[in-house]
Amino acid sequence: MKYLLVVFLLITAHIEAQNNDQNQIKEIYTSALTDGNGYAWLNYLSNQIGGRLSGSLQAQQAVDYTKKVLDSMGLDRVWLQPVKVPKWVRGTPEFAYIESDPGLTNNVPICALGGSVATPFGGIKAGVVEVHGIEGLKTLGKEKIQGKIVFFNKPMDPANINTFQSYRGCSDQRYSGAAEAAKYGAVGVIVRSLNLRLDDFPHTGAMSYGDTPVGDRIPAAAISTNGAELLSATLKLNPGINFFFRQNCKILPDTDSFNVIGEIKGSTYPNEVLVVGGHLDSWDLGDGSHDDGAGCVQSMEVLRLLKATGYKPKRTIRVVLFMNEENGLRGGKTYAEQAAKKNEKHIFALESDSGGFTPRGFSFDCDQANFSQVESWKSLFEPYLVHLFIKGGSGSDIAPLKNDNIVLAGLRPDSQRYFDHHHSANDTFAHVNKRELELGAASMASLIYLFDQYGIK
Amino acid sequence: MKYLLVVFLLITAHIEAQNNDQNQIKEIYTSALTDGNGYAWLNYLSNQIGGRLSGSLQAQQAVDYTKKVLDSMGLDRVWLQPVKVPKWVRGTPEFAYIESDPGLTNNVPICALGGSVATPFGGIKAGVVEVHGIEGLKTLGKEKIQGKIVFFNKPMDPANINTFQSYRGCSDQRYSGAAEAAKYGAVGVIVRSLNLRLDDFPHTGAMSYGDTPVGDRIPAAAISTNGAELLSATLKLNPGINFFFRQNCKILPDTDSFNVIGEIKGSTYPNEVLVVGGHLDSWDLGDGSHDDGAGCVQSMEVLRLLKATGYKPKRTIRVVLFMNEENGLRGGKTYAEQAAKKNEKHIFALESDSGGFTPRGFSFDCDQANFSQVESWKSLFEPYLVHLFIKGGSGSDIAPLKNDNIVLAGLRPDSQRYFDHHHSANDTFAHVNKRELELGAASMASLIYLFDQYGIK
Repeated sequence: MKYLLVVFLLITAHIEAQNNDQNQIKEIYTSALTDGNGYAWLNYLSNQIGGRLSGSLQAQQAVDYTKKVLDSMGLDRVWLQPVKVPKWVRGTPEFAYIESDPGLTNNVPICALGGSVATPFGGIKAGVVEVHGIEGLKTLGKEKIQGKIVFFNKPMDPANINTFQSYRGCSDQRYSGAAEAAKYGAVGVIVRSLNLRLDDFPHTGAMSYGDTPVGDRIPAAAISTNGAELLSATLKLNPGINFFFRQNCKILPDTDSFNVIGEIKGSTYPNEVLVVGGHLDSWDLGDGSHDDGAGCVQSMEVLRLLKATGYKPKRTIRVVLFMNEENGLRGGKTYAEQAAKKNEKHIFALESDSGGFTPRGFSFDCDQANFSQVESWKSLFEPYLVHLFIKGGSGSDIAPLKNDNIVLAGLRPDSQRYFDHHHSANDTFAHVNKRELELGAASMASLIYLFDQYGIK
Repeated sequence: MKYLLVVFLLITAHIEAQNNDQNQIKEIYTSALTDGNGYAWLNYLSNQIGGRLSGSLQAQQAVDYTKKVLDSMGLDRVWLQPVKVPKWVRGTPEFAYIESDPGLTNNVPICALGGSVATPFGGIKAGVVEVHGIEGLKTLGKEKIQGKIVFFNKPMDPANINTFQSYRGCSDQRYSGAAEAAKYGAVGVIVRSLNLRLDDFPHTGAMSYGDTPVGDRIPAAAISTNGAELLSATLKLNPGINFFFRQNCKILPDTDSFNVIGEIKGSTYPNEVLVVGGHLDSWDLGDGSHDDGAGCVQSMEVLRLLKATGYKPKRTIRVVLFMNEENGLRGGKTYAEQAAKKNEKHIFALESDSGGFTPRGFSFDCDQANFSQVESWKSLFEPYLVHLFIKGGSGSDIAPLKNDNIVLAGLRPDSQRYFDHHHSANDTFAHVNKRELELGAASMASLIYLFDQYGIK
């Protein structure tokens, strides 16, 4: 009899908890869709500030602005965490053309890759060899590459449903193409933009020279997908054409910047920290609305939503706007170092860095016990059409926090349009839909709420 | 022993069938994403033809164009089915202003609702009463409404995840607002656009005078959401302001048009017909890319995908591009009448008429046995992030086919952005993402494939 009573009480408590969860989550979504602030914050970040490359004036303005917003939100603590960041500047606009015959030229849109060296002041003109991926260099060999510009033209695979898989399938051309081509005597590299669409936007992004000696570094630029198609077609007609490009980007000394942090102290377990964040820096060509202004304002909105719905967290909930994800990850590394130094116990971290599109779910970097707990929450998200709960990556900025006692997660928005915008002048506020952004923030707040309620296993 | 063998064979057959289904569906998605034709067809419909209001030159051009495309696809039969359609024309651009003081005016964007009568040649200027929905008329009563323009300003509820629910929650203002307001002596109605965003696009759509005598019909126009906010704010400051609008739309005699139909004959059950379709007509303000050019080209693409993957249907698969969904549904009604007259056995019909956005699933109008069969297919769609299989509406054009021996279904794309575009000048090709469109077509083709394989219960 006593046993039955215990079972009855447990079931009753379970149903009550589930009802509470359902109600809290409904309040979160309703507040996000009716009183959301994220879109207005993003408007400011995008249209009043703009692209926020690490070390730039705009990056500092974004630090100041988001700190001011967090200050106004009635959090328990808001602060700046110093981060030393690299400073690469693009300089004057890049210029390139295909010279199919002497004097007969077609201009094509290019942009320097982030971290690239400049061309000589007058630019570089040379013959071109086309390869499909880094492995193509070996096939051609030094004889055919020496003195040439290498054109990396491996396209993103359109057949993947997850466009990030297609991205990872050819991003090595952009990241390491110049370092590898230099070994074969190339004088420069032109990389097909990582874009699934055919259009005229060149897409920048980080590249690295690895251990290439300074004197052997060759300039690297991205060409728009339409430009890549034109270059490839021209080469098929006449392999002897020349390509010209000029860029005067450069690396300046490291400079001071900040992660922007705000928190609500936990009522029961203040020493257990849950982090939600995005990265405040962006590339410089667009205004960084999707990458990753969206993730920043969504993370700020998570704290607003918890407060607006009257929720008092048991654990400490911290928003972190990381600096320098794009070309150094210094903010993420610094945050993790400082957390370790202070012996802070982080149990959960969630990043939004895949665009402000309709949320489809989350991916988790955790053990099976914690993943099973997450799976038990799936039905709570179904009314909001959030179905995808999978194991997989989380986010670059939170990855340095990884250990055996933390669950890492990443928001997974719809990914079909992301690479139309990513790292290009086409990443602008006009391409963010208010409701999609808000639904992402509400999904994040709901997951943070659940981890706050139930902790980790 | 014999029993075990039978079980073994059944299990083997089941696994083989499932593998076949998986493989066929994978081929469909891959072909859609790598060789899809729908986006190019939509480009033509949208940018070479444009808005396709029933009875217009453009509607006829769309009939001719899609017939020509179907003719080129190697189908077993392509034909036009005559449909008599209503013909309403917008006339010269509408014009409206708020007169907050005599001589002090603010222009606001309006458009005539489809089916509305014109204003007098010189326009109408009158005082304004604001109501939130049709029920507001009764509260005000004849005394306050007589001689005034009624301003229906009930906004779409932003809290619904399914934006079509919000749409249905206030579309009666647009459809019946004029007929109802006329009963109280109103001289015209201005309806807040059915748009979740604040912007400057007026959104048209069908309205009806019901049994209002011709002489008592009053003109009805939609105002942009920003315009509605301005009008409401101005009324709060001064309830005595006037509103002016002018429109010279009219109804012409019914005219001849067509449904465009193509089919692949079934190899085993040629008399069982599966229909996939969208509507070829659109409103006239934009180019009708999402509503419903997308649904048309996706439906055409379904047949291309089946052929391109080498699939030989057991049943007859028919694409139907319905005419006149927007303001009469004559195409859908005619198709169903002709099907009944010819004793054709339709077992399944699928419509895409909710925009060319990322597909999230399907809704079904069917009995439980058939819905259970659909649910058994869910795992086949999971790799493509198509999760939503629910009971609910299907599509306006296929609804007239309803009986006890047919399953009706509607594609359910992501609905967050749909009402930014729906029935407005903002419904243009630039707002359709190629991959999202293609994923919708692939999802539709996969469902058609499964119904062709397994029939209905």
